[in-house]
Parts: sequence; C-alpha cells; structure tokens
Amino acid sequence: MRVEIINTGTELLLGQITNTHLGFLAQSLFGLGLRVERQVTVPDGPAITLAFRDAMARADLILVTGGLGPTSDDITREAVAEAFGLKLIFHQEILDGIAAKFAERKFVMNELQRAQALVPEGGVVLDNPFGTAPGLIVEDGTTVAVLLPGPPGELRPMWQNEALPWLRKRFAGRLPPVHEVTLRVLGLGETRVQILLEDEVKALGPVEVGYCARPGEVDLRLIAPEESLVRKAADLARAKLGDAIYAEGAATMEEVVVRVARAAGKTVATAESCTGGLVASRITNVSRSSEIFRYGWVTYANAAKMTELGVPAGLLETHGAVSPEVARAMAEGALRGSGADLAVAVTGIAGPTGGTPEKPVGLVYFALARADGQIEVIERNLSTVRETFKSMAAQIALDLLRRALG
Amino acid sequence: MRVEIINTGTELLLGQITNTHLGFLAQSLFGLGLRVERQVTVPDGPAITLAFRDAMARADLILVTGGLGPTSDDITREAVAEAFGLKLIFHQEILDGIAAKFAERKFVMNELQRAQALVPEGGVVLDNPFGTAPGLIVEDGTTVAVLLPGPPGELRPMWQNEALPWLRKRFAGRLPPVHEVTLRVLGLGETRVQILLEDEVKALGPVEVGYCARPGEVDLRLIAPEESLVRKAADLARAKLGDAIYAEGAATMEEVVVRVARAAGKTVATAESCTGGLVASRITNVSRSSEIFRYGWVTYANAAKMTELGVPAGLLETHGAVSPEVARAMAEGALRGSGADLAVAVTGIAGPTGGTPEKPVGLVYFALARADGQIEVIERNLSTVRETFKSMAAQIALDLLRRALG
Repeated sequence: MRVEIINTGTELLLGQITNTHLGFLAQSLFGLGLRVERQVTVPDGPAITLAFRDAMARADLILVTGGLGPTSDDITREAVAEAFGLKLIFHQEILDGIAAKFAERKFVMNELQRAQALVPEGGVVLDNPFGTAPGLIVEDGTTVAVLLPGPPGELRPMWQNEALPWLRKRFAGRLPPVHEVTLRVLGLGETRVQILLEDEVKALGPVEVGYCARPGEVDLRLIAPEESLVRKAADLARAKLGDAIYAEGAATMEEVVVRVARAAGKTVATAESCTGGLVASRITNVSRSSEIFRYGWVTYANAAKMTELGVPAGLLETHGAVSPEVARAMAEGALRGSGADLAVAVTGIAGPTGGTPEKPVGLVYFALARADGQIEVIERNLSTVRETFKSMAAQIALDLLRRALG
Repeated sequence: MRVEIINTGTELLLGQITNTHLGFLAQSLFGLGLRVERQVTVPDGPAITLAFRDAMARADLILVTGGLGPTSDDITREAVAEAFGLKLIFHQEILDGIAAKFAERKFVMNELQRAQALVPEGGVVLDNPFGTAPGLIVEDGTTVAVLLPGPPGELRPMWQNEALPWLRKRFAGRLPPVHEVTLRVLGLGETRVQILLEDEVKALGPVEVGYCARPGEVDLRLIAPEESLVRKAADLARAKLGDAIYAEGAATMEEVVVRVARAAGKTVATAESCTGGLVASRITNVSRSSEIFRYGWVTYANAAKMTELGVPAGLLETHGAVSPEVARAMAEGALRGSGADLAVAVTGIAGPTGGTPEKPVGLVYFALARADGQIEVIERNLSTVRETFKSMAAQIALDLLRRALG
C-alpha cells in the first residue's frame, strides 16, 4: 500500500512554522504497518489540486493537512471533490454544530463558515471537538483521501479518535507487518558500522538497514517484515557493536544515565570546564534527575578550579588546565565536594581561540572518579566547531557515567 | 523564478526526525527575494531520482538536502548527475581533504569515503569544514541544483558561506529587492506586539510584518522593498517596544549578554537550581565568553545550596528552596564566591513532580546581585513542560544580566 502526505500552508513554505504533522502522522502510520513514501508541501490555493491529482496517480492512501478552513485560500475540500469527480453537498447539521460552537464562545458566525459544511458526495465526516472545520474521508474505489485540519491541536485528537480507527477497519487484512528497531551508537562512524555488520545483517533475510548520523554518533535503523528477523538483526548488531550501543529506540543518553543511576541507587556529580554546564543541563532535562544529581560545578576559569574543586595551583602551572592531570583532580574534587558515588570532569579547548600546536582546538580530557577510588582518564580530539564540540564532549561525558553505572 | 526543495531521508518519512531544513532555507531564500513554491520529502534511494526529474520540469532552482554521505543509501550525487546527463568525475583533492580530516581526528579512513569525492562534470564543489561530504552546485543551462549535506551543523554554514553568495552572484539582477529586519522581543506575546504597532508600521508604507512566536518571546519580522522604509519601521518598533527588544537580527540572548559584558569589562557568575546549568551552558556557547564568565554553580540539592553558596539552612527550612529569600541568598553567595561584578540565581519548580497548591510547577524566582550591593528579585510563572520551562527560565535569567549590563 502506497501512502503519501500533502501538507498545505504558505507559512510552511515561508519557513514561519515547522512541519510537525509529518512526524506525528508517519510514526502513527508506521504503527499500522504503513510507511509514508512521499510527502509534499504546497502553498494554499490551486497548487493543492495539482498536488492531489499527482498523488492520486501513485498512492492508495493520501493524507491532506490544512486548507479546510472558511477563508478563500482554503480549497482542499473543493480540490479533492474535483479530483474524485464528486459534487459538494451542503450539510445543515454540520453548520448547526459550528453555529453552536460560536454561540458557546459568544462569537457571531458569518456566512463564510458555510463552506465548512460542504461534504464531497458519500464522504465520511470526522468530528472536530477542538475547532470548527470537520475532517473528511473521501474515496473513489482505488484511492482513499483523509482530509485533516491544519492546527495540531485539532489534527492530533481527530487523527487518534476518528481517522485511525476508521483506517484500521477499512484496511483490515491489508496492513503489512513492519517491525523496526533503532539502535543508538556512540563513538563509531556510520561507514564503520556499515562495514562491521551490514553484509551479515542482510544475510539474515530481508532486513532494511538505515543510518542516521549525528556528530560522533549514528542511529542504526533495522526494519523487517517479521519481529523475529528484526530481533535477530538487532542481536547481531549488539554482538558486533557491544556497548557502543547506548540506547534502543528514541532514548537520549541523559535519559539512559538517569534511568541506570536510579536503578542502581547511585548519585552523580559534574565538574565542567569546556562544556560549560551542558552535561549538568542535559542530566537535569530528565524528569526525576534530582534523585541522582545534586551537585554540579562550572569551573570555567583556573581560579574556579582551585577554589571550588581544590585543583592544586601547581598542577595547573605544570600541566595546564587542559591536561589529564587537571581532569583527574577536577573529578576527585567534585567527588569529594558532592559526596556522590560518581563524578565526571571535562576540560578541553572549545575554540575558536585558545588552541596551540601541542593543544589544538578540539582537544579534551575526561575523568571519571568513583567513590571506591578508581579513576579513569581519557583523551579525545573532537570537532573544532564550538557548539558541536560541546555537544560531542557532553555526550562522551554522559557515556562515561553510563558505562560506569551499567 | 521557481524554487523547489527536495529533502531526502527515510528517517524524515518515518517521523524519527523533524525537517528543520525547509524553515531555515525558506527564510534565507526569502531574504534573497525568493519564495519556495514546493517542498517534497523522499526516502533515501531511487525515489530521489524521480523527485529530481519531476522538479526539473518546473523549477529554475532546486535545493536538495541529504544523501551526500558515503553509505549505500546516499545516492543524491548519482541521481542529479543522471538527471542532468552528466558523468561523475573522481576528484583526488577532495579525497585527500577528507583523508586529512580523518588524520586530524586520528581516525582511519575506509574506501567507502571515496564516493564523496565524485563530482558531476562541471559541478561547483562547496567546501564542508564541518563534515566530510562536500556540497555541490550543478546546472544544465535552465535549472540550477544545489546539493547540501543532511546534518544541520554542516548544511547551515555551507549554505551561509558558500551556496548563498554563489546564488547571489549567479542570479544578480533577477532577484527582486527585499530588505528585512528582525527584532527579537522578550516578555510580550505576538498579539500584544501586533496591537502595539502593526497599524502604525503599515501606515509608513508597504511593509510586510511577520511574527514568529516562541515560548515567552516573539521575533518581529519587518520586510520592505526599500532599506529606508524598513529602517523607519524598525525605529518605530523600537520606540514602541523599548528594551523588550533584546536583539536585532539573529543574535541570541547569550550573544548579547557576552557582547555587552565584554564591552563593559564586567564579569558574571551563575547559581542555578531548576535550570540545571543551562544558563551557564548558553553563556559558554558564545566564543570568548571565558573573558566574562568564570564561575557557575549547579546547586540542584538543598545541601549544595548550603555548602557551595552558603545559603543558611534556616532560610531553606523557613521559606523553602523555591522562594525569593533563597534566590537572593544564592545570588549573594555566587557573587561572594566568584568575585564577579554580577551574579544571577534561579530557583524554581521544573516539574512534572514537586508542585504544590501554593508553589505550583512552573513557579520560579530569579535574583540578580551586583558588586555594589544592589539586588533585584523577580517571580514568574512559566510553562509546566520541563524543557520549555528550563529554556524560558534561562532566557529570563540571561535577560536580567543583559538589562543590568546595558
């Protein structure tokens, strides 16, 4: 079954608002075993007719968002009726419903609202409890079109409560099984991951392998027609990639850290120089992180490293702030000062200034200190773009906590 | 001139990531006097070829994002070369550049990277300082195609620094004049801003007024055919909105804070509870922020507020951590501990848990302490959505610094 989405709205093409419908509908359709094969955004007006005719030539199911309102540029209803060769029939009961909503809010209804009471012959009307324009489902025997209102607050409940159940019934038996696993991998490039496992994964059977790369990491996406096959593929990936896989599904690194720390009943502390508070901020993005995180320091200057974390002045003079020795002393100081079970420290050169031949921009040292006295120090050369550097460094610092907790 | 955008990426059609390229590129093109007439999203693979041929039939300028990487599903380069009937030529110097980047990061390059050194005959190569895949500009006399990498951190600088200047030159004379000023406003809703000035602005002449609202703030976009007119409109907006305007253009609040503090030769410190390090992290996103920021504390637990900032236990017991008194003591403690000229403190309830009838989720207190002993404390009720709460609270804390420095 071919599924396409048409998003209408000039504001989308002016970049004034971001299209959140595609993601919402695509995820929901995937749960039905359906995949969106194409999405197009067109401005309000006649382009909608062309886009719909174009999609009809390919798709079995077409979702159209927006253009159901009462104003002159809202022509989705007309466009679809015309493409299917159906008359628009006026429904008094729909207009009465709209009138009642206006009365409720003490608004005066004008005659433009009448357009929203027009329904293509034989169309199914989807109730819109959160707005005036009803949704519509129209079909011609080969193509099913679902017309949804543009405002997310109207579209989402209408989709969940009306359109989705209707589609489940309408396509019962025709919905192919689709099983997906996404594994989030840190510290290996996408080509490395492909070389490590793509051939072997594909040898297991019809598994679709996809890669979505971000700085320093990659999401590995495995899709197969059977649960057992996608599981087998995921197990193979786990065997090959080991604990470079930090999450399955959409979980973020900080969510994993908080979950694992809560499960272990352990607390963590942070001592940050070059990441400037980003590690702490990401931990505290997670609800209930207060159970595992209590103390964080942003010791951006050497003086702060000395007075707040007790880093010896001598260490800073001898080795410089960006050194394994200072990273280690920062982590030890944070552990002492916080009484936490684990403390992670980050010190590096975020740039663009401050690099030297021996210590270039992008160089960073991490230290992980444990209450039992064990300490681990690592060195990395990361991006020379400041914000990318910070996010990669924060991710590695969080990963050190994850590995120490897991 | 017809402009279309093709976004490639199966993850977009699976709803795993949101398309932020369209908004970024559309706004930038608008600045050139160009409007995007159509946007399509297609999965990685052969669909790219079909979508490109389809767009070629209509568009003068086609932007393609994604599919330039080294893995098997990255075929944009091949698709466009094929559609234009051009051979792909291997460029050793591109591969050498990629090899150098791998060497810099101490990574080993593998043979798959070679694909990124292929360029359609006569194509313009766009340097990618933040990744391996170069961008490409290819044309056949009627249609210009700009191929950009998928990761936003690579696409955006490449667009700004390479593609945009090239297009300005290439289409010089064909671009209608557009002058734009964006004013960033904190603490006023978009309807309030509209009521305050839209009629008077429009009375000045043909000025297009646009609003882009974010939680707690709004960007006011003024567009006119003449520079003088857009300036007049901006001056009027400044007269009406005063220091609620924190920036002109794309500057972030933290960039303004660092710029103003550097100009004034002053240093700032942060004491954060509910924002969890976000204020410090945003300050340190700005290059050379080390000149004005040295100390930050993330005192997430009461114990941390006492031991690190010297907040008296009695205050915490009597008033609770989320109180004007504790906010004030945190700011004073940060000022003392850091020796900075200004210290800002934030304490509130980010939720979802921890709210009470008297102190609901979203309640937050800010304190700004100055070396001269002056202190200012404010209360706000912000979003009850955790991450929105944090970003709004961080923005207000930064704004307190901006106003105190300005």
